[in-house]
Amino acid sequence: MAQAILPLAVSLGDPAGVGPELIAAAWFARRVHALPAFCAVGGAGLLASAARARGLDIPVERVGSMEEAALVYDRALPVIGDFDGEYRPGAPDREGAVLALESLTQATALAVSGQAGALMTGPIAKSRLAEVGFDYPGQTEFVAAAAGVETEDAVMMLAGPNLRTVPLTVHVALSAVPGLITQDLILRRARVVARALERDFGLAHPRIAIAALNPHAGEDGRFGDEDQRIVAPAIEQLCAEGINASGPHAADGLFAARGRAGFDVAICMYHDQALIPLKALDFDHGVNITLGLPIIRSSPDHGTAFPIAGKGQANVGATVSALRLAADCARSRAALLAA
Amino acid sequence: MAQAILPLAVSLGDPAGVGPELIAAAWFARRVHALPAFCAVGGAGLLASAARARGLDIPVERVGSMEEAALVYDRALPVIGDFDGEYRPGAPDREGAVLALESLTQATALAVSGQAGALMTGPIAKSRLAEVGFDYPGQTEFVAAAAGVETEDAVMMLAGPNLRTVPLTVHVALSAVPGLITQDLILRRARVVARALERDFGLAHPRIAIAALNPHAGEDGRFGDEDQRIVAPAIEQLCAEGINASGPHAADGLFAARGRAGFDVAICMYHDQALIPLKALDFDHGVNITLGLPIIRSSPDHGTAFPIAGKGQANVGATVSALRLAADCARSRAALLAA
Repeated sequence: MAQAILPLAVSLGDPAGVGPELIAAAWFARRVHALPAFCAVGGAGLLASAARARGLDIPVERVGSMEEAALVYDRALPVIGDFDGEYRPGAPDREGAVLALESLTQATALAVSGQAGALMTGPIAKSRLAEVGFDYPGQTEFVAAAAGVETEDAVMMLAGPNLRTVPLTVHVALSAVPGLITQDLILRRARVVARALERDFGLAHPRIAIAALNPHAGEDGRFGDEDQRIVAPAIEQLCAEGINASGPHAADGLFAARGRAGFDVAICMYHDQALIPLKALDFDHGVNITLGLPIIRSSPDHGTAFPIAGKGQANVGATVSALRLAADCARSRAALLAA
Repeated sequence: MAQAILPLAVSLGDPAGVGPELIAAAWFARRVHALPAFCAVGGAGLLASAARARGLDIPVERVGSMEEAALVYDRALPVIGDFDGEYRPGAPDREGAVLALESLTQATALAVSGQAGALMTGPIAKSRLAEVGFDYPGQTEFVAAAAGVETEDAVMMLAGPNLRTVPLTVHVALSAVPGLITQDLILRRARVVARALERDFGLAHPRIAIAALNPHAGEDGRFGDEDQRIVAPAIEQLCAEGINASGPHAADGLFAARGRAGFDVAICMYHDQALIPLKALDFDHGVNITLGLPIIRSSPDHGTAFPIAGKGQANVGATVSALRLAADCARSRAALLAA
């Protein structure tokens, strides 16, 4: 039986981006998508304005706790926290950045303290948040720190209806990637991934495919020896630990339908290797989920999209998917704890 | 009105691979797929054996010219050339490599001399052909040399129902890629691509998207400056020449449905960047086509697949697509010449 969970805490993201309108649109479509109960953190007036800009006249109701949010959710979009701001879509400013940071901070605290069932974060502009004192490369690192987890053990996974991928390196030059791939990095991340897929995704022996760095996995060292020298020994070690890891797999065929049938998650060496197949297959439904935390945290895998904010063009698919996935993971974890 | 073209010359590929059975299977399905007339080069007995191994009892008929092949094609699989060999699927040997090379050489000559309407090459094992005197990195370079074109001007394009990509670098270590990307390389290849898409694909102003080397195109040089320093100026130059080039585009979003709607071909910086999206979207229908030659040459985008040869498991989709695409290109070029 599915475990009952508390409502999800949802941060607004940058109020000039598409975050607020997508929260409103998701609440509006809560029944058709069978969404878990969720509660926005701050911005009650802003959310009502963002909804109207999208042609939605929705009731917004302030609540004092997540238990109250659960009772309100069916009839109105619940909002916890009194802070609010002006809705100026497409025009990010300092005031909006302060609001986004406040919402993220409080939403994270609600999840870490156990008052919320999980955390979904809206899209922020990192450079703007940095201007108001946000000292992290991204929200993943912020949430990890708030949850008391070392950054290296908080693992970003991208999940869509067709594919899950984990990039080992992210925002670095392609030329820097080969030097960053170490056995330690592969082992540390793969162990987190294996545990998280068991605990949060209910997979008894998750099949972890590890992509090769070089084309054709280097063809026995003919073009690049990293796959033989670094990746293969790491996979051997993982297998020795009882983790169902395979590879190094030539990355070009790995994401074809037949390749995908062979794994539950692919660990990739660099950003585009992980993101190209995910976006090619699942663009409007990609979810960014952080593995290895004491809380469940997801996020729609898109940015603030300032140019289309307030125009009713932003697709709610990824927000819907992020809410559903976070709730599914929270239930899976709760069921294990209850067992 | 569609131009009439002579039958295509089709080389066998390695006789121990899936090439021969796929030629037989394509001929068997010639009506349902509305295939252009084609003629196998050598291996009449071998093709009959490969067909039987696939459960197909097809008539094979020797012909003396491509004109005769056109007359025979409807009732039998035409074969030009008397050389033949034993059918030993999954067991490649020297005799088979000699046969594959002979078939490739004669098929190419038929196309270069204008006796065949186009060339489709079957899959070979490069290392095995090298043992019998084949001195080229692959069939593309062999065909380019036979057609009197410099290797740098013979451009490999991968084409599927959803996507066309051109990799600027192929079988090199990922660490070597950044050093190989130069403005000259981009300009030379993009010019060939632009001309070929006009002439052979009937696109008046082909839209050429150029993928960035670094994730997010390096975000203004924050991680990698090659996209600003090398790729962007090359695109400016191409535009100044009247070529409809755009970019550098962040590669992760480029192959999502909305990204794909914006271009006719994507020029990619490395093997996996070009091949991951193609195989994720179009695995069983990928065609390798060589642009910039005086002849049309295509190939199914898969290898010899020795382990499944003779077992009836190989998918004929890519062979069907390669035959159709070669014929379409040959007709487009003939129509331009006739106009």
